[in-house]
Amino acid sequence: MSRILTVAAAQLGPIQRADTRASVVRRLCDLLRQAAGHGCDLVVFPELALTTFFPRWYTEDQTEIDAFFETALPSAETAPLFALAGALKVGFCLGYAELVEEDGRLRRFNTSVIVDKSGEIVLKYRKIHLPGHAEHEPWRAFQHLEKRYFEVGNLNWPVRRIMGGVLGMAICNDRRWPETYRVMGLKGVEMVLIGYNTPRHNPPAPDHDRLSEFHNQLSMQAGAYQNGTWVVGAAKCGVEEGCEMIGASSIIAPSGQIVAQALTQDDELVLARCDLDMCASYKETTFNFAKHRQPEAYRLIVEQTGAIAPE
Amino acid sequence: MSRILTVAAAQLGPIQRADTRASVVRRLCDLLRQAAGHGCDLVVFPELALTTFFPRWYTEDQTEIDAFFETALPSAETAPLFALAGALKVGFCLGYAELVEEDGRLRRFNTSVIVDKSGEIVLKYRKIHLPGHAEHEPWRAFQHLEKRYFEVGNLNWPVRRIMGGVLGMAICNDRRWPETYRVMGLKGVEMVLIGYNTPRHNPPAPDHDRLSEFHNQLSMQAGAYQNGTWVVGAAKCGVEEGCEMIGASSIIAPSGQIVAQALTQDDELVLARCDLDMCASYKETTFNFAKHRQPEAYRLIVEQTGAIAPE
Repeated sequence: MSRILTVAAAQLGPIQRADTRASVVRRLCDLLRQAAGHGCDLVVFPELALTTFFPRWYTEDQTEIDAFFETALPSAETAPLFALAGALKVGFCLGYAELVEEDGRLRRFNTSVIVDKSGEIVLKYRKIHLPGHAEHEPWRAFQHLEKRYFEVGNLNWPVRRIMGGVLGMAICNDRRWPETYRVMGLKGVEMVLIGYNTPRHNPPAPDHDRLSEFHNQLSMQAGAYQNGTWVVGAAKCGVEEGCEMIGASSIIAPSGQIVAQALTQDDELVLARCDLDMCASYKETTFNFAKHRQPEAYRLIVEQTGAIAPE
Repeated sequence: MSRILTVAAAQLGPIQRADTRASVVRRLCDLLRQAAGHGCDLVVFPELALTTFFPRWYTEDQTEIDAFFETALPSAETAPLFALAGALKVGFCLGYAELVEEDGRLRRFNTSVIVDKSGEIVLKYRKIHLPGHAEHEPWRAFQHLEKRYFEVGNLNWPVRRIMGGVLGMAICNDRRWPETYRVMGLKGVEMVLIGYNTPRHNPPAPDHDRLSEFHNQLSMQAGAYQNGTWVVGAAKCGVEEGCEMIGASSIIAPSGQIVAQALTQDDELVLARCDLDMCASYKETTFNFAKHRQPEAYRLIVEQTGAIAPE
């Protein structure tokens, strides 16, 4: 048996602040056309794919920040991408900054959506693990103010049957947390779509910088293996406004093996024929959750947030 | 700052059924002496280190099985190891089959203990993730009857300050489950000691066999990185009663990097100077749980055992 979904990770090189959304959408459309030419069903674009990675700047001017947000998707500027997806019959996953009126107030989320082959949004996820900090830390060469500009996502990690597979999403820092994959694993996920923007330099832990790609892939490989799921990670990378971000976009099998990996720091498509039926080989044996999990022993995972060391 | 604990993973080659406990204890003592000669503080021995891996055989004769269990530790046969530890001032971690009268009945656990430099047991763990099956499955070349011969451990994953570090234990299949490391991570663990017996051949999933070492290390590396802890894995390996078991005993840093790894399928000591202060670099930044974890989003991890896929 096999159930092939041909998937591309569409890595993006840098997007400078002066780049217009229209110019970015043209790059996304180019990648989508490449993917269609290779018979892909689905293209995964990075997190916050429509603009530069704005959480690197501190400002108290909300208007300046809101200019990086989308109030509608599709919008006039992004409509060509949706139309092209429908015309080419290729779905995609796209990350963007979402500004929405909800519960009677304006709310801002770091969001991604899956768009099906008809060009319709069929699933939405809002990032749960916001990294960085909420206040200005001027000692950093670059800020990482996701905790300031976004709320924690309120949709949990939804999964849904799309294109014949059980698909879910995570965003950037989510991929380092095993809870992310496990929650979706418990919902039967067969492919996790992940966009990311990861600065090479982590100011609070500069000695980790040279391990960035290793940690990126270790986290995604473990998440794949431990839940018997495909994982597709797509980076925005290269030097963006003077800040270097890692690439290493990857497609990872339920075995944890990397089956495709980007080599450049620029716009680049990597793809793989992903057999969703390979998931069962893990989900029904080593990671048969019903047989082997012991939730009673895991209570601390939800009952405690921070670590508490013994006296 | 540095807080060095010099640790050895003491891999064991095969123990055949005819081998006496006395002969095994002599091998353990040899390895302990080697470790002392290299200035080690602590030696990690494998799971069920005193006998052959008996869950590979099905029997309804409980007496036959109970012969593989310890009713006391130390016992007459194991006392020399404890005495040597005290004499050499080297602690150890040892896995064994524990037969105990508890709650008014005989109970059997797959257990490990940490023994300090005075030769005293200071921490006990009973394996929670029992792999395999409970009933005879004669189609398998080798059975894996841990679910038959052991109860699920009832001590959670305890951690304790020992030799200046926060130490905890896991056993074999536990190491594949991110929950194992996370529960101890929430208790501030700085070093997880893991013994294992892992047959190369997994009858329900033979296509995974060639990936055994990769999965072994991927799981331990991810657990180390995602919790900012050292992980020490010690295998019983080689061909035991015709059954091949993997080696690849490893010492893994809080970065997820492998810093020492066994090369043989036999008794072999690998060691590393482990700076426990390296943990903080991860625990206080990327994996600062208090700042970044979102337990409310993780509820499914304790509320559901098996996977439930969408319609």
